[in-house]
Amino acid sequence: MDKEIVKNIDKTKIVRVAAAHVAPIYLDREATVKKACGLIADAGQSGANLVVFPEVFMPGYPYWIWTKTTREGMPYFAELYENAVEVPSAATEAIGKAAKQAGTYVVMGMTEREGGTLYNTLLYFDNTGMIIGRHRKLMPTMSERVVWGRGDGSDLEVFDTPLGKISGLICGEHTMDLTRYALITQGEQIHIAAWPGISAVTNDPNCEIFNQVAECACRHHAVAAQSFVVCVMTPVAQDSIDKLGFADRPDMITTGGGWTAVIAPNGQIIAGPHTGAEEKLLVCDIDLGEIVFAKFSYDSAGHYSRPDVFTLHINREKQRIVEDKA
Amino acid sequence: MDKEIVKNIDKTKIVRVAAAHVAPIYLDREATVKKACGLIADAGQSGANLVVFPEVFMPGYPYWIWTKTTREGMPYFAELYENAVEVPSAATEAIGKAAKQAGTYVVMGMTEREGGTLYNTLLYFDNTGMIIGRHRKLMPTMSERVVWGRGDGSDLEVFDTPLGKISGLICGEHTMDLTRYALITQGEQIHIAAWPGISAVTNDPNCEIFNQVAECACRHHAVAAQSFVVCVMTPVAQDSIDKLGFADRPDMITTGGGWTAVIAPNGQIIAGPHTGAEEKLLVCDIDLGEIVFAKFSYDSAGHYSRPDVFTLHINREKQRIVEDKA
Amino acid sequence: MDKEIVKNIDKTKIVRVAAAHVAPIYLDREATVKKACGLIADAGQSGANLVVFPEVFMPGYPYWIWTKTTREGMPYFAELYENAVEVPSAATEAIGKAAKQAGTYVVMGMTEREGGTLYNTLLYFDNTGMIIGRHRKLMPTMSERVVWGRGDGSDLEVFDTPLGKISGLICGEHTMDLTRYALITQGEQIHIAAWPGISAVTNDPNCEIFNQVAECACRHHAVAAQSFVVCVMTPVAQDSIDKLGFADRPDMITTGGGWTAVIAPNGQIIAGPHTGAEEKLLVCDIDLGEIVFAKFSYDSAGHYSRPDVFTLHINREKQRIVEDKA
Amino acid sequence: MDKEIVKNIDKTKIVRVAAAHVAPIYLDREATVKKACGLIADAGQSGANLVVFPEVFMPGYPYWIWTKTTREGMPYFAELYENAVEVPSAATEAIGKAAKQAGTYVVMGMTEREGGTLYNTLLYFDNTGMIIGRHRKLMPTMSERVVWGRGDGSDLEVFDTPLGKISGLICGEHTMDLTRYALITQGEQIHIAAWPGISAVTNDPNCEIFNQVAECACRHHAVAAQSFVVCVMTPVAQDSIDKLGFADRPDMITTGGGWTAVIAPNGQIIAGPHTGAEEKLLVCDIDLGEIVFAKFSYDSAGHYSRPDVFTLHINREKQRIVEDKA
Amino acid sequence: MDKEIVKNIDKTKIVRVAAAHVAPIYLDREATVKKACGLIADAGQSGANLVVFPEVFMPGYPYWIWTKTTREGMPYFAELYENAVEVPSAATEAIGKAAKQAGTYVVMGMTEREGGTLYNTLLYFDNTGMIIGRHRKLMPTMSERVVWGRGDGSDLEVFDTPLGKISGLICGEHTMDLTRYALITQGEQIHIAAWPGISAVTNDPNCEIFNQVAECACRHHAVAAQSFVVCVMTPVAQDSIDKLGFADRPDMITTGGGWTAVIAPNGQIIAGPHTGAEEKLLVCDIDLGEIVFAKFSYDSAGHYSRPDVFTLHINREKQRIVEDKA
Amino acid sequence: MDKEIVKNIDKTKIVRVAAAHVAPIYLDREATVKKACGLIADAGQSGANLVVFPEVFMPGYPYWIWTKTTREGMPYFAELYENAVEVPSAATEAIGKAAKQAGTYVVMGMTEREGGTLYNTLLYFDNTGMIIGRHRKLMPTMSERVVWGRGDGSDLEVFDTPLGKISGLICGEHTMDLTRYALITQGEQIHIAAWPGISAVTNDPNCEIFNQVAECACRHHAVAAQSFVVCVMTPVAQDSIDKLGFADRPDMITTGGGWTAVIAPNGQIIAGPHTGAEEKLLVCDIDLGEIVFAKFSYDSAGHYSRPDVFTLHINREKQRIVEDKA
Repeated sequence: MDKEIVKNIDKTKIVRVAAAHVAPIYLDREATVKKACGLIADAGQSGANLVVFPEVFMPGYPYWIWTKTTREGMPYFAELYENAVEVPSAATEAIGKAAKQAGTYVVMGMTEREGGTLYNTLLYFDNTGMIIGRHRKLMPTMSERVVWGRGDGSDLEVFDTPLGKISGLICGEHTMDLTRYALITQGEQIHIAAWPGISAVTNDPNCEIFNQVAECACRHHAVAAQSFVVCVMTPVAQDSIDKLGFADRPDMITTGGGWTAVIAPNGQIIAGPHTGAEEKLLVCDIDLGEIVFAKFSYDSAGHYSRPDVFTLHINREKQRIVEDKA
Repeated sequence: MDKEIVKNIDKTKIVRVAAAHVAPIYLDREATVKKACGLIADAGQSGANLVVFPEVFMPGYPYWIWTKTTREGMPYFAELYENAVEVPSAATEAIGKAAKQAGTYVVMGMTEREGGTLYNTLLYFDNTGMIIGRHRKLMPTMSERVVWGRGDGSDLEVFDTPLGKISGLICGEHTMDLTRYALITQGEQIHIAAWPGISAVTNDPNCEIFNQVAECACRHHAVAAQSFVVCVMTPVAQDSIDKLGFADRPDMITTGGGWTAVIAPNGQIIAGPHTGAEEKLLVCDIDLGEIVFAKFSYDSAGHYSRPDVFTLHINREKQRIVEDKA
Repeated sequence: MDKEIVKNIDKTKIVRVAAAHVAPIYLDREATVKKACGLIADAGQSGANLVVFPEVFMPGYPYWIWTKTTREGMPYFAELYENAVEVPSAATEAIGKAAKQAGTYVVMGMTEREGGTLYNTLLYFDNTGMIIGRHRKLMPTMSERVVWGRGDGSDLEVFDTPLGKISGLICGEHTMDLTRYALITQGEQIHIAAWPGISAVTNDPNCEIFNQVAECACRHHAVAAQSFVVCVMTPVAQDSIDKLGFADRPDMITTGGGWTAVIAPNGQIIAGPHTGAEEKLLVCDIDLGEIVFAKFSYDSAGHYSRPDVFTLHINREKQRIVEDKA
Repeated sequence: MDKEIVKNIDKTKIVRVAAAHVAPIYLDREATVKKACGLIADAGQSGANLVVFPEVFMPGYPYWIWTKTTREGMPYFAELYENAVEVPSAATEAIGKAAKQAGTYVVMGMTEREGGTLYNTLLYFDNTGMIIGRHRKLMPTMSERVVWGRGDGSDLEVFDTPLGKISGLICGEHTMDLTRYALITQGEQIHIAAWPGISAVTNDPNCEIFNQVAECACRHHAVAAQSFVVCVMTPVAQDSIDKLGFADRPDMITTGGGWTAVIAPNGQIIAGPHTGAEEKLLVCDIDLGEIVFAKFSYDSAGHYSRPDVFTLHINREKQRIVEDKA
Repeated sequence: MDKEIVKNIDKTKIVRVAAAHVAPIYLDREATVKKACGLIADAGQSGANLVVFPEVFMPGYPYWIWTKTTREGMPYFAELYENAVEVPSAATEAIGKAAKQAGTYVVMGMTEREGGTLYNTLLYFDNTGMIIGRHRKLMPTMSERVVWGRGDGSDLEVFDTPLGKISGLICGEHTMDLTRYALITQGEQIHIAAWPGISAVTNDPNCEIFNQVAECACRHHAVAAQSFVVCVMTPVAQDSIDKLGFADRPDMITTGGGWTAVIAPNGQIIAGPHTGAEEKLLVCDIDLGEIVFAKFSYDSAGHYSRPDVFTLHINREKQRIVEDKA
Repeated sequence: MDKEIVKNIDKTKIVRVAAAHVAPIYLDREATVKKACGLIADAGQSGANLVVFPEVFMPGYPYWIWTKTTREGMPYFAELYENAVEVPSAATEAIGKAAKQAGTYVVMGMTEREGGTLYNTLLYFDNTGMIIGRHRKLMPTMSERVVWGRGDGSDLEVFDTPLGKISGLICGEHTMDLTRYALITQGEQIHIAAWPGISAVTNDPNCEIFNQVAECACRHHAVAAQSFVVCVMTPVAQDSIDKLGFADRPDMITTGGGWTAVIAPNGQIIAGPHTGAEEKLLVCDIDLGEIVFAKFSYDSAGHYSRPDVFTLHINREKQRIVEDKA
């Protein structure tokens, strides 16, 4: 019904989004960059304005933290460190170039490296290939804390682009309500929800329920933020399993997993969900003109807020360990 | 699996909850009190420690605000005003007495009256029949603003009872992330989510999606709060439709609707969902011993928070229109 | 020579310290409390003014985080959560009572529980049994992050007692130079360095070098802070190994480990090191009168500092996720 | 184990370092330059990429400040002043030329002269003989303050060279934790720790413990910085003793002393310690590929820091007594 | 002549100053306090408005730094540390009380202790016994650096009292022209120049010339500042020599020494010089009305300055090693 | 003692200076040039490396400004203007030629003329007769402002010559501490202090104290700058008195006056003082090798400075009244 109303009043604003339900070439940055560039080109051909990749697509999620002891995981950490992405670097330049050639915005999940610490990062490219922003996951979840450092409040930004106001969060950040609300207050219209394929990690204590948690969080956020949500997950591929030495350990990890979908501001799924081992670019048109109807009901940072009761204080400062003395 | 672990380590803490998927005797406070007391007795017989009623069960949800013009709704408002519940009053005493006799806690949804204003209220009784707390909906949704006033921050409490830490919110408050988070920070273990049977109000713009929005919000809150959620909705009964004069207007409202369920801290539905016209006391044992496993993953107000980045400031003062000058 | 000078000038100030190289009754809070109280009494009999227990003595270090996957570790986490110590609680009262009876200060390592999160805490009792302070480990190390939350700057205190200025840090915090320096600036005279028996955890990537890292950190801190250091480590006991299910896995964990010693402000070891499975109360007199000779050489927060070049900014605020609106 | 992992994943980065455990031709700049050039040539022959000399090797440490009164020391001061090194000068050109011929980086300790003041300086040459940096000791220790002025924050640099990130500190600076941390934050990979042979200065109040203090400080820094440490000390030679007039005063000073070693980022000694009167070029291969494993545990300026609690403010300005008016 | 003019124009403003050419009870704080209080009472009886004590009168100058090696000096340092003065403390309260009873301002030289560091301090009391200010010597001279830390720019104050504008410097600070000028710019009228009795320290390289350097510096400052100068030095007493163990070492130190005088703004000595072992309260009236004639010739911070050519930038911030994060 | 040490270590650097305690042929430039050239030749014969003349020797000090009213002084000003020295001019060439012939450096005081303004100038010639620099008095004193203009910061230079680093100031500039310090920071080794014979001007309010002020300023500067000071004053000659018409007014001016001396860096007078009417070339050897001992104690622009507290900003620009627009 909403759509009909929107059409009648002729305020449609269509954006074509592509969610890449794909796996990396595991722990191989250069090969993964190449694969990503190919996918961006494909998305461009399908007319996408925005292509979204899963959490730490480059160069893959550290599944070993759930399936091995810390000591067993150490060589994998070294491998990940070596294949992590510096910003900027040749890897990010290649992605930028692909974005420009395809004429599309790209949001890329990656393990970013700065100094001796790795971060779980979403990197935003515009359709000229420029990096327009970055978000580092604020709080890695459980065993992830062995691998990644913590971001800070300096990159909790919503990017005001010609496509609309875009931002995103990573995995368990969706359960940090204040983090989501920080984006809501900036008028987010297209929310990227990037996740790993945990549902295939049979040894993860949360694997059975992972996709449902993600679905509910994404759909709730769509309603609470009155925003479209592009939920994108990576499936587990055989090469990852082989590299982890778990070819015959389905009790540890299997191929497949993931739940990729596009959700409207009223919480309805409008594309997907696509799940399982088959890779897919889930392409879907979204109409930002529909947002006004969601705001009519619940403008969580406007008429449906109670600033006399609640104020969220956000420290947006870059947290520095060292500063020049003034 | 979690449960198995919990059992093995023999740390279970069982609470039996009863969610009353029931309709009031529409706009008739005395009759509805009587019905409520009967249901409380039934719950007591089934061993329930906690009985939960839907949003404004006493004396029914003002469906006319979605199906009639404001002028048409005026006589109904007068009826509602007359049948609203003062706190304390004979009606609340009756409920308390029933709670005491049944030996159960009761959370009752009601339209509360104070002076000339009505409030959308949840009232909490312990198993001795004492009123232990109240919550007034902070922000009525859309047309509801024609009927109810707004609560304030003075009653955003979590009640620390022998059963566990109990609190609750009403309907669209679940999309107010800061409101939910205010409860999370107090260690909520059993969350009451009280809603009306909007999915049967065919003239409501959100009726088609209402139950899904509620489901996602409840399941998300369970995960984000690491709390059990008792979601309770009222179905629409024929007497309500008759009283509203819509007996032959299924385009306006039908019987049925509602989505009542109990959800575990990992987001899984463990009882229900029960939907539709049939009334039911959904009884279910929950084991608070499971919460620790959810906290292990995401303690949103503890290790999974970033107080260095976010602080939620809450005004817990009772908002008064007049005060003695200090 | 220093000592001779001190004696000649008759300015000695003797404190008798006891470092408890002991293991808990693993994951059993009540039994461990009882054991601790017995040790405190023993220390009191030997005339100790200050008794120091190792990191998370109550109720034991989560060795599983180094030897099991996260999923395998979950039941142990639940056990730890159940046996963690709330402050205050019957457990802390018992320790306080023992301190009072023995007439000694006590510094107790414990896993503290607040809400859904556990913390790695040192708790300070005076000789009347009062809790005089607390320190929560600021940053758990690697896999420890799966178990404990992070402290904040609000408890980086040095306690000015009749015995002298006492403070302490936990394990890897000794590699956080700024954390150590925060104590140095407050004139620390007796530093507690509490560690777990990692050297017996054969599956920990750092086990081989653990004791040496600890020794160097402690001796360096003694010199850099011009403070006595009481280094106390727990050995691994057979009951811990049995409970972890590693009775026949010496490749995972063995009994013994630990390095307990008392170090003078010039970096020299004056008692111990005591290592291995045998439990021992290492008792030693320290003479605070010697500190002046260390300050003569290096007063790191005085004449041997360069405040024109360096200023350490410390956020001592309690980090709150929620605050009352002013 | 770490090394094995490193080799398996084939990411080794080998640097050959040579630590010169040698004594100067006492208070004779030209002869000492000649000796240094010979040693640099020897190091080049052994394939060294980096040769490191002790604190104030050119032209020797002012041992008299510990063994004579100020008045007695005055003629020695004049001798030192005369033989101190200006930068640049013929002496530094000679060292640079030797570095170029040997194809090795050189870090040279020297008493530097600027105007009427002497400084305790480390001077850095690259393998083309260029001076790439300098560090003046920030705070001379006790009696040293009679001889040397103080450096400032302008030269607290880590030099990013093709060999890796190199920096260093001098003697007691290692007890200034903020000074060490200033280097840590710049990602130091090879740390030079330059010291004098105090352990042979029997009249120094710290002589007995000097080597142990140095060892602990160096090994602690290796762990805290996740850096290799090249610790280099000078032994006392007979010509120094003769020149000081202490040929028959072993209660004042003896030959020998010093503690020269190379330490890995996990705190383990991988070459040496070499001590005593025998001169030696301690040559050792270090593999920077191992650093990632140390960073995995403790990245003190990354994931193992708490910038929300601590920020180190550094005044990097050159401190000038006079400036041109703007 | 000037005086005559002053009298004629009837603008005299007389202040009676007393310069205490006295020795402490060596390294005995309490006995020295008692002696000081007696002298203050005597000065009060002679009508003094201002009594001035020499550099580190309490509890005596560390003569051993010029006559012993550092190691030999260590026990003396410990003794000094023990007898140093904390501000405030019983010792300063006693002085304040004496000042109040005598009705006179007091400037007291002392070794001040803060934490582990000693400072060479002048402490200012008004005639009600209140501490009105403090100055810590900015830069100890040569061997003094072994004993005292450095002050900072935060206490370079001139105290505007009913007696006139009073300030002072300590010993070698008078050769720091910028330090003197910092006081000149604040309109100093009575300058305290406090010195130790170095001229009796026969082993000090500067002993022969010490009094002449002091005289010239004081008289120059009087002219350059157009200020009265009260120059006060301590003689060496036999008890100091005995305590230092130099009773029969006149080649090291003798009794006597010191040069105490009052100087007018034109550089002329108007009282004293008193020198040698005999103790004396040198009492003298000064007439601030004479200053205008000096300003007529040279107002160094006014008409006789060239601010278009010179600006002295002063950092008056307290130098802190640690600060609360804003 | 210092000298003995210097000799023993054989690092002497001897310069022979000649201070010309002489009077001009009053207000007669050509005759004075001739006299000067004769004196330079004499000095050359005595082996002087440097000959220094008093303030405005060419053609004499304007004593009338202290002894006559402004109107009475006008004809004398005209005379002075006529006999002032342009730079360069025949007069300066003559001096240069004499310097070359005598093989000595010359510093000549003169009234310099540029346009309509006179300046009080010191002009520096090397031993080849070249003018190597100039200094114009920055601020004439009191009545002098009627005669001379003011210099600027462009000529506050220290001249680095083969003899050593030479500079100088004129009369009251020595009370401008910042001016002196500007030279100190440049490493001055031989300071020229040029003054007029004011002590013979009985009508000058400062005449009684003039020589003492000069002595203290010079000796203080020697110590504060660790520089030799050549203080040179002119006596008043009978021809000057005659020309001023004061032959019988000893209440106005007498012959004689002046205080000429050479001072070592420790403040000791090593030649002179010569005073009174008798003219004299005070010749004296100075040994720059002694400076290091003074620097050892007080290097005012090095180890004995506090650049963290004080920075002197100097405007070294030539002050121009007109400039081309950039």
